[in-house]
Amino acid sequence: MDITKLADQIRAGDRRALARGITLVESGRDDHRAQAAELLQALSATGRQALRIGLSGTPGVGKSTFIESFGMMLTERGLKVAVLAVDPSSARTGGSILGDKTRMPRLARAPLAYIRPSPSQTHLGGIARRSREAVALCEAAGFDVVLIETVGVGQSETVVAEISDLFLLLLAPAGGDELQGVKRGIMEMADMILVNKADGDLKATATRTCADYAGALRLLRKRPQDPEGFPKAMMVSALAEEGLAKAWEEMSALADWRRAEGHHDRARAAQARYWFAEEVRQALLAELERGAAKAQMERLAGKVASGALTPSLAAAQMLESLRKG
Amino acid sequence: MDITKLADQIRAGDRRALARGITLVESGRDDHRAQAAELLQALSATGRQALRIGLSGTPGVGKSTFIESFGMMLTERGLKVAVLAVDPSSARTGGSILGDKTRMPRLARAPLAYIRPSPSQTHLGGIARRSREAVALCEAAGFDVVLIETVGVGQSETVVAEISDLFLLLLAPAGGDELQGVKRGIMEMADMILVNKADGDLKATATRTCADYAGALRLLRKRPQDPEGFPKAMMVSALAEEGLAKAWEEMSALADWRRAEGHHDRARAAQARYWFAEEVRQALLAELERGAAKAQMERLAGKVASGALTPSLAAAQMLESLRKG
Repeated sequence: MDITKLADQIRAGDRRALARGITLVESGRDDHRAQAAELLQALSATGRQALRIGLSGTPGVGKSTFIESFGMMLTERGLKVAVLAVDPSSARTGGSILGDKTRMPRLARAPLAYIRPSPSQTHLGGIARRSREAVALCEAAGFDVVLIETVGVGQSETVVAEISDLFLLLLAPAGGDELQGVKRGIMEMADMILVNKADGDLKATATRTCADYAGALRLLRKRPQDPEGFPKAMMVSALAEEGLAKAWEEMSALADWRRAEGHHDRARAAQARYWFAEEVRQALLAELERGAAKAQMERLAGKVASGALTPSLAAAQMLESLRKG
Repeated sequence: MDITKLADQIRAGDRRALARGITLVESGRDDHRAQAAELLQALSATGRQALRIGLSGTPGVGKSTFIESFGMMLTERGLKVAVLAVDPSSARTGGSILGDKTRMPRLARAPLAYIRPSPSQTHLGGIARRSREAVALCEAAGFDVVLIETVGVGQSETVVAEISDLFLLLLAPAGGDELQGVKRGIMEMADMILVNKADGDLKATATRTCADYAGALRLLRKRPQDPEGFPKAMMVSALAEEGLAKAWEEMSALADWRRAEGHHDRARAAQARYWFAEEVRQALLAELERGAAKAQMERLAGKVASGALTPSLAAAQMLESLRKG
């Protein structure tokens, strides 16, 4: 594959080249990894940056409808929008191209939008790298906004927050008792909470829910990267397309403030450091699963299980043989 | 230090030798680590096994009172009881010798009981190893029951469950709405749920809470290591010393069944394998924090942060230099 040419095509906004590039970064093959690294290094010089918006929310909250309505609104303003999904479960039914495109039919046809179907993966470390690299390719291809959706199963939120500039938590209207259902850790990551389905019969409940979350957010410790009033809770209706323009205004204001104050650059640099260290760690641990190391691990584990060796002594022997190998 | 002599003393039930042994396994010094490994290997031949009971519960549930009352009941039956705490937070105020002994004054004076104050640590991987090794020393010293208490901050429950034969979840009487406050993952680890404070004004609430949890437990998938009726929820009052004998009967029955069915040995072997692999992983990652590797990590992280290198390319360079080093 001619990587220089592929890089040029992606930079020129060629959708098929972008798709090929993302397929390349998603591949686990060693030769593909090397080519992907070359491609990313070549494209890092563009200096183009999209606004990366991470989006989390429990199932049934209307995430697909939100992405569709919000994405359409952005494209109608002339913004180029890419949608990526981070999904650590390989069993997800909607993970096919058809699945992702049918759940957002209007956006899938919008010329300014690009929806990348979620790859089916099992290893979270690998998913993180692939998602992060797919985002980088979309940026190089000139997208203005990249929406990164997570299916919300705990660890994937951290992955998405670590590749996003803004992290949105989408919630459904609910009674006060259910407030505690949102993990504190996830709340603390959120830059904005959007209470969806603020329409029809649910409007009153949505208003209460929004007030509850606004109250809960005020109890959290103030972060340096937040201007006055953030993180904030707002109501939207993706179905009725209400509140979306206002939400986008708030997101833009927050992003602009962070850029002006240097928080944006600092966060991106910290994220890059984080992913570098994480990738080293994952690769190091992966070596235990391969070849002679794997066989040695299994041999020692057998001795440990039978009680012939203590776990610590066996671990010391394993480390010794890794040092020699 | 004469490790053979120390091993003999511990085997003979010498408390001061046991305390010295635990201090040794808690040490992070390399020479101490080597001696600790030697000590553990020497003691592994005793073949003595205590019943290891892990205990988790939210703050305020009366854990100290439970350990005191339950531990006293066991010693009154002639059983030797050791109490250890797994505490990943170094800031815990009750972490001193005085703290742990004052919160269980009767048990601290009981001749058949041994309370080991929790060490103050920050690194969870290290805590796990030290707790596991302290348990092994208590077993070699001839204790019949080892109670391993966790402060309940998420990850520490997994550590305790992985070094226990039985895992108890201690809960307070509460309204049905609060049921979801217990994380599903923690519930799934529990062999028994004990609803404490089933006395006085709270008795009726405790009865309801216990029924709620019993119902919730029935909804969980049956595990091979559970006989009919387990995991189970019961009421106790540590303060009034009620229900403790019955709870102990159930624990003993469960432990006996697991021993007879081979689940006990299989679980211990699986735990040993787990800790072996975990210790190798932790040690491997720790090498990134030392000496030349650390310096190289920092140098590359700087390039990544400035955008001169992508995280993946920097990671590849780091792994290359680790291979050479």
